[in-house]
Amino acid sequence: MAEKVTIEKKVLSENDRLAAEIRSTLENLGVFCINMVSSPGSGKTSILERTLAHFGESIPTALIAGDVQTENDADRLKKAGGKTVRAIETGGACHLDAKMVKRVLDDIDLQDIRLLFIENVGNLVCPASFDLGEDLKVVLMSTTEGDDKPLKYPSMFRRSSVMIINKCDLLGLSNFDKEKARENALTINGKMKIIEVSCRTGEGLEEWYDWLESSVAQKKR
Amino acid sequence: MAEKVTIEKKVLSENDRLAAEIRSTLENLGVFCINMVSSPGSGKTSILERTLAHFGESIPTALIAGDVQTENDADRLKKAGGKTVRAIETGGACHLDAKMVKRVLDDIDLQDIRLLFIENVGNLVCPASFDLGEDLKVVLMSTTEGDDKPLKYPSMFRRSSVMIINKCDLLGLSNFDKEKARENALTINGKMKIIEVSCRTGEGLEEWYDWLESSVAQKKR
Repeated sequence: MAEKVTIEKKVLSENDRLAAEIRSTLENLGVFCINMVSSPGSGKTSILERTLAHFGESIPTALIAGDVQTENDADRLKKAGGKTVRAIETGGACHLDAKMVKRVLDDIDLQDIRLLFIENVGNLVCPASFDLGEDLKVVLMSTTEGDDKPLKYPSMFRRSSVMIINKCDLLGLSNFDKEKARENALTINGKMKIIEVSCRTGEGLEEWYDWLESSVAQKKR
Repeated sequence: MAEKVTIEKKVLSENDRLAAEIRSTLENLGVFCINMVSSPGSGKTSILERTLAHFGESIPTALIAGDVQTENDADRLKKAGGKTVRAIETGGACHLDAKMVKRVLDDIDLQDIRLLFIENVGNLVCPASFDLGEDLKVVLMSTTEGDDKPLKYPSMFRRSSVMIINKCDLLGLSNFDKEKARENALTINGKMKIIEVSCRTGEGLEEWYDWLESSVAQKKR
C-alpha cells in the first residue's frame, strides 16, 4: 500500500498547487469564493437559488455546480437568475478538484465578478480533502439528517468556517435536536459560525445574506 | 495518471477477491446479506432499529455498522435489541471495503445467523465501487432529499436491487415528487423494487418485512 499512499500524496500536492493558483487569481481580482459542501439533498442548490433572487445584480456572482452526473443544479441556478453558471459533471468522481475548477474558471470572465460559489458534489467525506482555492467552506446540514453528523464526518466540519442548519421548518418532525447539533459542531470546530435557516419559508436567511454581504465587502479589489 | 489507474485497478481486484471469499462463506452458511447504502441521514440505522424490533429472535441477525468516525450507529442498534452488532470506524475512508468486513466477520460466530446487514458509510458515490460479498444492495433515499438523486448518482442506483423511499410522512412538506423519484429510479434501473416507508410512523414497513422474510427463507442452508 506504500505505493498507493505516495501517489495519493502526489495527487494532493498537485491539487494544492493548482488551488494556490486559483486562490491568487481570485485574490487579485477581489473575488470572494465559497466552496459549498454537504450531503446530497441538504439544500445547497436551494440556498443558492434564494441568494441569487435576493441579491439580483447587486452582487455580481458566478456559480460552478458540480455533480457526478446531470447538469440539473446548473439548470436550476440559471432559472433562478444566475448570469454566469457553469456545470461540472465529474463523471463518477466523488468530489471536485482544483484542476476541474481551474479549467472552468479559465473560461469565465471574472473582471466584474465579486462573488463565486462552487457547489461541490453532495458528499460529506471526500470533498473535505480537496482545496479548490476558496476563501472558505460553508457546510450545510439539514434537520432531517441527524444531529450527530459533525461527529461522524469530523474532517468536513473541522475545515468549514460556517455551518448552515437548513430545513428548520421541519424541526419537531424528526428526532433532530438543534441544540445538540450546534453543540456537536462546536465540539469539532469551536470557531464555527452557525446560521439556522429554512430555504422553504425564508426563515433565517437575512442572517446569511448579511454575513455574505459583509464578507464580499471586506474583500479588497 | 496511468500509474494511478493501474493501482486503483489492483486495489479493486484485491477487493473483489476478498468479496468473493465472503460471499462463498455466507453462501455455505445460508446467511442472506444486505449492503445498505444511502446519503448520510436517509435513515439506514432507523430502518434497522425497526427491523430488529419487529423480528426479535425470529430471524437471527448480525449487523455491521460502518462510519467514518464514532460508533453511534452500532450503539443504537445494540439498544434496539441487536445481539450481534459490530462497528467499523473507517477513520477517514469514505466507504467500507471487503477487507474491513472480512476482518470483522472472522470474529463473529455465524453458525446460527440467517441475516446479515452491513450498514455502509453514508455516501452515495464511493461505496458503489466496493463489493462486500453481499447478496444485494438496498439503497435508501428520503423524501427530504430531492427526487433526482437516482439521476445524479446513477452508479449506486444501478447496482442496488431495492430502493426504499423513507420519510414518507414528510411528503408534501418539500418539493419532492414521489412519482418522479420512482420514474427516475426505474430509468436508471428498470428492475428496481421500490418500497415506500416512514420509519417514524411505521407506514409501509410491512412490505419491507415481508420482502425480507421471504428473501431469508429462499436462502438455502
